[in-house]
Amino acid sequence: MTESPKAEIGVTGLAVMGSNLARNFARNGFVTAVHNRSYAKTQALLEEHGGDGTFVGSESAADFVASLATPRKIIIMVKAGGPTDAVIDELAELLEPGDILVDGGNAKFSDTIRREAAMREKGIHFVGCGISGGEEGALLGPSIMPGGSKQSYESLGPILEKISAHVDGAPCCTHIGTDGAGHFVKMVHNGIEYADMQLIAEAYDLLRRGAGLSPAQIADIFAEWNKGELDSFLIEITAQVLAQVDATTGGPFVDIVKDVAGMKGTGTWTVQTALDLGVPVSGIAEAVFARGLSSQGEQRAAAQQVGLPGPQEQWPIEDLDVFVATVRVALYASKIVAYAQGLDEIQAGAKEYGWDIDLGAVARIWRGGCIIRAVFLNRITEAYDTTAEKPLSLLFAPYFTEAIGGAQGPWRDVVAGAARYGIPTPGFSSALAYYDGLRAERLPAALIQGQRDFFGAHTYQRTDKEGTYHVLWSGDRSEVQS
Amino acid sequence: MTESPKAEIGVTGLAVMGSNLARNFARNGFVTAVHNRSYAKTQALLEEHGGDGTFVGSESAADFVASLATPRKIIIMVKAGGPTDAVIDELAELLEPGDILVDGGNAKFSDTIRREAAMREKGIHFVGCGISGGEEGALLGPSIMPGGSKQSYESLGPILEKISAHVDGAPCCTHIGTDGAGHFVKMVHNGIEYADMQLIAEAYDLLRRGAGLSPAQIADIFAEWNKGELDSFLIEITAQVLAQVDATTGGPFVDIVKDVAGMKGTGTWTVQTALDLGVPVSGIAEAVFARGLSSQGEQRAAAQQVGLPGPQEQWPIEDLDVFVATVRVALYASKIVAYAQGLDEIQAGAKEYGWDIDLGAVARIWRGGCIIRAVFLNRITEAYDTTAEKPLSLLFAPYFTEAIGGAQGPWRDVVAGAARYGIPTPGFSSALAYYDGLRAERLPAALIQGQRDFFGAHTYQRTDKEGTYHVLWSGDRSEVQS
Repeated sequence: MTESPKAEIGVTGLAVMGSNLARNFARNGFVTAVHNRSYAKTQALLEEHGGDGTFVGSESAADFVASLATPRKIIIMVKAGGPTDAVIDELAELLEPGDILVDGGNAKFSDTIRREAAMREKGIHFVGCGISGGEEGALLGPSIMPGGSKQSYESLGPILEKISAHVDGAPCCTHIGTDGAGHFVKMVHNGIEYADMQLIAEAYDLLRRGAGLSPAQIADIFAEWNKGELDSFLIEITAQVLAQVDATTGGPFVDIVKDVAGMKGTGTWTVQTALDLGVPVSGIAEAVFARGLSSQGEQRAAAQQVGLPGPQEQWPIEDLDVFVATVRVALYASKIVAYAQGLDEIQAGAKEYGWDIDLGAVARIWRGGCIIRAVFLNRITEAYDTTAEKPLSLLFAPYFTEAIGGAQGPWRDVVAGAARYGIPTPGFSSALAYYDGLRAERLPAALIQGQRDFFGAHTYQRTDKEGTYHVLWSGDRSEVQS
Repeated sequence: MTESPKAEIGVTGLAVMGSNLARNFARNGFVTAVHNRSYAKTQALLEEHGGDGTFVGSESAADFVASLATPRKIIIMVKAGGPTDAVIDELAELLEPGDILVDGGNAKFSDTIRREAAMREKGIHFVGCGISGGEEGALLGPSIMPGGSKQSYESLGPILEKISAHVDGAPCCTHIGTDGAGHFVKMVHNGIEYADMQLIAEAYDLLRRGAGLSPAQIADIFAEWNKGELDSFLIEITAQVLAQVDATTGGPFVDIVKDVAGMKGTGTWTVQTALDLGVPVSGIAEAVFARGLSSQGEQRAAAQQVGLPGPQEQWPIEDLDVFVATVRVALYASKIVAYAQGLDEIQAGAKEYGWDIDLGAVARIWRGGCIIRAVFLNRITEAYDTTAEKPLSLLFAPYFTEAIGGAQGPWRDVVAGAARYGIPTPGFSSALAYYDGLRAERLPAALIQGQRDFFGAHTYQRTDKEGTYHVLWSGDRSEVQS
């Protein structure tokens, strides 16, 4: 006698992420429309998890759209690229002006800008929405970074906020900015994640090869670190991964894992985009390169055959506790730099694409649900929320200036020791080089500009007066204004 | 009674580079057709430099094309991007099958691939051709990197080889590979140039701020270095730039130049392309980032205001001669790594795009004419020419393995000291980190892969057996094959 109630939200694409997200909506009391290209996945969801709440399953896209209350809100959870375009095209035909179409995948922000413009012409709100937290986050509360129009957030926002992670009562979801802002911020989030993981890996390598500790011992150290300023999801799982024992060999799990780190592209995009924007994100770049190097199997095998010479001496560790504390401090300092660089990229992106992004709010919604969630993000939010004038670098916020100033001694010790005793720390050392570059009153870039003027007549500016100048290098070497 | 002889080669776009290239052809005895969008530049060339040889000037593109002997050979020397496309489109209408259209600008290799395919459909040979050496090189003999069809090189090659620089009797020009190979190699050449310049700048900074030497003293040191293994154009001009005295202040020229290094994009492309190919080119990336940082004026000014803390102590230099030698050796080692990474990118590009590139020949044609010309390139050519099995990294060639092995002590000292005493050496330290990463038997990438399996079920491979595995981290933590 009664029809199904109209759904408040719809999810199409029911692989693990989409399925878990749909369950999250249903568990939070939303009537949730679900759809998948092949109906089997929809059926499986309804059968296995129908008890989570009220689902409305549809076989066809048309029925799916019809099952939603207007303005319709649909989240697309399919592969980035072509598959996403195909689903958008199919749904756009069925939607009405005012409806909201959300792309919850890891789309490239430039694709999102393009799609938003195309949908806007049809009167449809297109929302590129970063969702972080993996499968578990999708089910239990992810960190959500929606872009798109402000208007779309008015009705979509409360639903997303409800299913997001919460920290101190605040949802890990906020309207990031228009069109591609959400996917841009998600991209940089992933880039920071790469840097963070690389830094942790370097700290592990220092403790393992530098200090000769076992994975189990290092697991305990990370567990201890997780009680202090480094308290974070990544440090926590590092302790667990290192504590894991391999059933086959009875040895440490980390030792039977091939030392080849995969990647899926968002780290690469972050660096490529930073290069377009002229923002130095050396920490993220080194992390991406380190994964790249790990994958050069043939070359690495050849290096073993050749036997590239390394230092003869072992790192002379006098006091293990001091060494461990030194590595911890160096990790913290390098991590601050990685975040500073990532936030710089967001600021530069906002300027380039006309987004009004609140960096304090970004840090706030990263505190829960996502991979880089960390206590430390509270300090970042404070840095941007409590000062009237926003700092031009995270490093200029008093808390962080002090933190890094206090850390620099041990930080320098670790980078120097790693160089001397042959343990690669590209992340630690690039972070330190960036810090020393940023604080330098004069950079040797002046020499580079002089070289450029010499061989390419690229001109230079002077420190003491306005204008653009060139030296007649092949002539009498006098200066001319150009 | 007699018509002008038909021209053997044509140049369109007569800004400084195009004009100098045309003069180079004429000086080498080629009848050279010249054309420019506005005729004034053509007239100026004919009036000022008509005595260089035989020019045939045309006002219209049609006359220009008609003035050339078939198969016509035209070099386009206009701005990359839109202007190049416009000229190609205009000329393509006037050309016949078998004619050769050369783009001598700094085009993106992907544009060249696209253009070559489009011209091939019309039967026109399109040759993307990298030309290095700046204005002077264009006139006196540049390093030339032509791509395009092998067939086009048969008639075009001898002309280009004749006007190119020559070293030990060999021309600095060779057929690099098909379609975009020439522009690809030119792009990486420029990326290496960025890295080389950054390393020189760091060496200067170490001598200046580390050892407290004056620019004039450092000029002498570079002049001395230019007599040994570092002998190169960039070291030579560094000595000259540092020796230059500013007429206005009477002080060192390098001190009145604003420490902001500009860039035009090829370094950025090199890194972005390497990221697409998964090749670690950290040295080039750090060089691009260092220029980017130098341009962050507001941020750098704010850093001075904030007063980011640095180390208290000055670098304790006991023996100046030893310190100078140490920096020289570190520079050489870092430079070897930068070249190794650049050559890796060429190798990866060749694999991706199906080019048959001879790295030994590439190094050979870089020995003269171009910005990175250096004695050192002879060693690279030998590395690839004399071994039956091509090394998978330049570092595996015996000469370089030995060179870097011998250098590592001082290299480690410099990187460690720079970290400790606060002088940014992103290039030196990233090169060392790369070296230590490449030679590591095990990388902490295994931990990263473990983390990825934990939070994203990204799976891992094992060191002891085939297959792809996953740990049920949220379950009983057993391993499953996936």
